[in-house]
Amino acid sequence: MPLDRRRVIRYVGIIVFPTVIHGLGLQPASMPHSASTSTSFVDRLRTVQRRKASVVCVGLDPDPDRLPVPVRDGDSLAASITSFCREIIHATAEYACAFKLNFAFFEALGPVGAQVLEETASAIPDDCLVIGDAKRGDIGNSARFYAHAVFNHMHCDAITVAPYMGHDSVTPFLETEGTCAFVLARTSNPGAGDFQEACTCDGEPLYLHTARKVAEWNGDYPGTAGLVAGATSPEALGELRNACPTLPFLIPGVGSQGGDPVAVMQAAATDEGLVIVNSSRSIIYASEGNDFAAAAAGAARRLRDVLNAEPNEAN
Amino acid sequence: MPLDRRRVIRYVGIIVFPTVIHGLGLQPASMPHSASTSTSFVDRLRTVQRRKASVVCVGLDPDPDRLPVPVRDGDSLAASITSFCREIIHATAEYACAFKLNFAFFEALGPVGAQVLEETASAIPDDCLVIGDAKRGDIGNSARFYAHAVFNHMHCDAITVAPYMGHDSVTPFLETEGTCAFVLARTSNPGAGDFQEACTCDGEPLYLHTARKVAEWNGDYPGTAGLVAGATSPEALGELRNACPTLPFLIPGVGSQGGDPVAVMQAAATDEGLVIVNSSRSIIYASEGNDFAAAAAGAARRLRDVLNAEPNEAN
Repeated sequence: MPLDRRRVIRYVGIIVFPTVIHGLGLQPASMPHSASTSTSFVDRLRTVQRRKASVVCVGLDPDPDRLPVPVRDGDSLAASITSFCREIIHATAEYACAFKLNFAFFEALGPVGAQVLEETASAIPDDCLVIGDAKRGDIGNSARFYAHAVFNHMHCDAITVAPYMGHDSVTPFLETEGTCAFVLARTSNPGAGDFQEACTCDGEPLYLHTARKVAEWNGDYPGTAGLVAGATSPEALGELRNACPTLPFLIPGVGSQGGDPVAVMQAAATDEGLVIVNSSRSIIYASEGNDFAAAAAGAARRLRDVLNAEPNEAN
Repeated sequence: MPLDRRRVIRYVGIIVFPTVIHGLGLQPASMPHSASTSTSFVDRLRTVQRRKASVVCVGLDPDPDRLPVPVRDGDSLAASITSFCREIIHATAEYACAFKLNFAFFEALGPVGAQVLEETASAIPDDCLVIGDAKRGDIGNSARFYAHAVFNHMHCDAITVAPYMGHDSVTPFLETEGTCAFVLARTSNPGAGDFQEACTCDGEPLYLHTARKVAEWNGDYPGTAGLVAGATSPEALGELRNACPTLPFLIPGVGSQGGDPVAVMQAAATDEGLVIVNSSRSIIYASEGNDFAAAAAGAARRLRDVLNAEPNEAN
């Protein structure tokens, strides 16, 4: 029920939005979603994950150099990428609770990229959540405009946010009820060592200090904040889960980046602490041949099964 | 000369880019700019600032709720914003060395926003630099795609970058010769206290540690990195200048945010340490009446004069 309503509201939001424009301007980003306020993002996520029996998120990073052969002959690069994403979505949705759209790959197409992104988000079925991997972060006034773009135009249920500029750059993303801002805490890349681990506050590393701040801000907007916590450091994942027992975690870094799915689940998944485990390249580029969609489906299914296995089964 | 060449190369870059596509994919972002490599961003900035006798950057934050009366009757919100930006650019360019495009306000228009942004960037005259205030930051592979979008499609000479994810999220923005990545160090907003000031590394605040890292990365790509350092803390500005004597600083926070232009110049401007002082709202919204363009020009001219005054004159 909440999922169907959400999708209906998503489209209604687009259609009715001009009627809630204030003057020539924008209402707070919460307006078009206001009818869906009864269900928080965390509750929606829990419902989806139970229904689909999956914590897998399929990451859509459509790299023009890696498109499978069957979709390379589109009328344009934009058309090829749209086809590729649609086929991947169609093939893998059964095994996923969410899709993550990496905005970089769409923006690199030029102005048409925003249209491709919007069309791709619209192709994601109702029973999956849509995460805009945009890593936005700016002062309050600008952040509100970014939130409006991602939640209202790009049909996203969640966004990734960079915390460097502090509270007034993050909280505008928490004001749209029913959505979620996954704030970078401890990322999966080599550069995580430069600031997140090297800097400290009150004796704790920056990534943990960030997480505590996010939990504090979430208190003012319950159910709207989460953390990005990479699979490449299960130890940090465990610390973050201890510090933030109820925040949902978006976990990149399994697959191509080498994170161990079983260790991730042991460190971070609890009854009240939900996880979304993302894999991009190792699913969507599982084959570059005619079987690319089936191969992606197989990779998503296998990841789902590994993540669902009891620790004894997995080992 | 370098400026004219740069602009020519900017357009040539767009036109010839399809011929340098590798397969269906993208070459490194440096390709379309490779012909302009003989002039670094810092050298170009120095030339522009001398020629224009100005360190002023006009920030374009086109807020639909604040459009002046004469441009409110466009065929669409996108058309109104395009007109507004063009008129502001035309009126203020004489007094500015650069324009800063705040991507949030363009993205909030929906898919058409990318087109509005591209058209606005194209309207900026040859003798001003274009800064894309995008605050991007993602793992290396994604960062390269963001760099391509901003430097090649959006015609920007520089971009703002968020450093939280460390070196592999920043250095891809340093690979396009002739351009610059202004990395957030100490921002002008209230949230600067949450992490930038509260966290430390080797006894120094995060903002200073960030600056030292940026200077280190700039060593591998000379002349391609700068810092964002807010006007609201002249003390931090001075520390940052001492730590990074040759990096250019992009300084927001004068005008509506209350930073003192004179204190900014005393703290950060040196012969070898260039500054770009941005003002957005107090220039572009100087009047909402028929005189909005003239009022913006007046505000830009006054800021230029205050920034150019010798300390004795200003006090």
